[in-house]
Amino acid sequence: MSLISTEKILSGNKRAIARLITYVENNHPHAQSFLDSLYPHTGQAHLVGITGSPVTGKSSLVNKLAKAYRDQDKSVAIIAVDPTSPFSGGAILGDRIRMRELAGDPGIFIRSMASRGSLGGLSKAVDDAIKVLDAAGFEVILIETVGAGQSEVEIVKTAHTVIVVEVPGLGDDVQAIKAGILEIADIFVVNKADRPGAEKTVSTLRTMLELGHASTHHVLHHGQLMTVEETPSHPDEENKKMWEIPVLKTMALKEEGIDPVVTTIDRHLDYLKNSGELMDRNRTRLIDELETALQLELMDRLLGQLPPNHLSETITKLVDRNLSPYAAVQAILKSREVGSRE
Amino acid sequence: MSLISTEKILSGNKRAIARLITYVENNHPHAQSFLDSLYPHTGQAHLVGITGSPVTGKSSLVNKLAKAYRDQDKSVAIIAVDPTSPFSGGAILGDRIRMRELAGDPGIFIRSMASRGSLGGLSKAVDDAIKVLDAAGFEVILIETVGAGQSEVEIVKTAHTVIVVEVPGLGDDVQAIKAGILEIADIFVVNKADRPGAEKTVSTLRTMLELGHASTHHVLHHGQLMTVEETPSHPDEENKKMWEIPVLKTMALKEEGIDPVVTTIDRHLDYLKNSGELMDRNRTRLIDELETALQLELMDRLLGQLPPNHLSETITKLVDRNLSPYAAVQAILKSREVGSRE
Repeated sequence: MSLISTEKILSGNKRAIARLITYVENNHPHAQSFLDSLYPHTGQAHLVGITGSPVTGKSSLVNKLAKAYRDQDKSVAIIAVDPTSPFSGGAILGDRIRMRELAGDPGIFIRSMASRGSLGGLSKAVDDAIKVLDAAGFEVILIETVGAGQSEVEIVKTAHTVIVVEVPGLGDDVQAIKAGILEIADIFVVNKADRPGAEKTVSTLRTMLELGHASTHHVLHHGQLMTVEETPSHPDEENKKMWEIPVLKTMALKEEGIDPVVTTIDRHLDYLKNSGELMDRNRTRLIDELETALQLELMDRLLGQLPPNHLSETITKLVDRNLSPYAAVQAILKSREVGSRE
Repeated sequence: MSLISTEKILSGNKRAIARLITYVENNHPHAQSFLDSLYPHTGQAHLVGITGSPVTGKSSLVNKLAKAYRDQDKSVAIIAVDPTSPFSGGAILGDRIRMRELAGDPGIFIRSMASRGSLGGLSKAVDDAIKVLDAAGFEVILIETVGAGQSEVEIVKTAHTVIVVEVPGLGDDVQAIKAGILEIADIFVVNKADRPGAEKTVSTLRTMLELGHASTHHVLHHGQLMTVEETPSHPDEENKKMWEIPVLKTMALKEEGIDPVVTTIDRHLDYLKNSGELMDRNRTRLIDELETALQLELMDRLLGQLPPNHLSETITKLVDRNLSPYAAVQAILKSREVGSRE
């Protein structure tokens, strides 16, 4: 009997789920048909992205959040995206450590995904793993990424609710808070809040959020924080009920402050539903996904239609500056048309 | 008489250069033909990427490097990519501040580019601006980015030589050094080296580089630095003469330590030429550029061939989970074929 089947995934069989995610990671030829048959069952889970540097204790926070959801009898899946370990060793070890703490609970599933190949590839694999877990009925999917790299911001953007984790000290220096992070956060958590400087980090974050809220841009220029007024470009956004980004304090290792985070995550989901933003985010996510899939397929087909050596000859001309990139595109597309007419 | 002409750009006319870069940023319909005619004149400049957070004093360092090149009678262009200011105000102000220090010198050109539209768009605009400045005869092009965001790592990757700027304190905590940064750096500079902790930052960086050099991967796991041996996958890379990534100290504001950085940048260019890596990097850069241009053109053509409403109807089916993304791709491509047969 086959290890994977649509029925097994839909019923939450963990071995089948784990195997299908491995298929997805390896671009196994059978992965696509399973994803197709699972697709109608997706769109139910609350996708929560959690990002922050490794020093923030983000992984402990994710574990405690998972436990809190289990206490509410909600099923939880964790996807830990780890671009720092370009091989499976670290990811597997991480899973083992976590498994020990949360082991044996059928309502929890944990998976690390390491960026082995291309970054675009990782995004697609994570998106597909989310679909598998969503179809398998996990109510909350926690997607954990390190905030530093290139595509993790993209990955975390696909979540409904994004939590950015900071620690005291890191946030004291306004410039140390990365510009892009403010734009993606729905909730800030200052973890290790028993450390000195926690209040200062909280108030710095609140100040930056207020600056952002007042329709201004905060510009870091030559080490100075400057703010510039801007007229709102979309009047609709003014009328929409706004989400005030909260700054919460936790001590994950002592399991303190966890429940308020869970409550706030739930409150954010309510906000998304009531404001219509949930539908917007899902739609945007699917359009992005469609575009990426179309681009891959178009490129695949093009490469299959080109005469042999045409591409490498074009690249040689490019390198020799005998052909500009734009002219090369036109030449390649023309060559395909000639080829397909034959 | 036209403000822009190929001849004016090739002769280094600053007003023509500035105008053409604005055309490139705005996707002006005339930009492409100028880029095509300039392309045969590109490929001469040394492209130097400089990345680091705003606290590192990276902009001062870039200014002093530019002055040092001018002292050697080399012409220099600076492109400051500023993703923190999504409007031109901050970028223009930054240019003005810099202009005052380096004003009136015909051998220098300074331009800020802000990420207004899509990030992919910024990459393309920067790539095209580099081509304009390269054709205009600037011998060194300094591309300055903030290290934090999504596409800046991509932008800086297109450079021949990548300098990562750190400051004392930031680097003390091994985990604070972003994983991706180690992979892109050709030269590390610890600026503000008169601050306490400079030596520790230098030695931390050197330790991390040695770990990397010994064919190991440094893995940050649960706040611990772990190293794992790995067999080299490409035996060729073992034989190739390696570049030992230097860690240099500067005090840019006091103009100390600048000349050794310039010498090291020159030495890196020699290494690139002698090892054959310069050709490899140029080739990779052009292949990436061709791929992006092909994808854009394929997508443009596809959208032009689709029956009206087909795309929006497909997206509705996707959102309603009546069609999977993969099936949607097949349906769209089939619809094009039907459309083009008519």
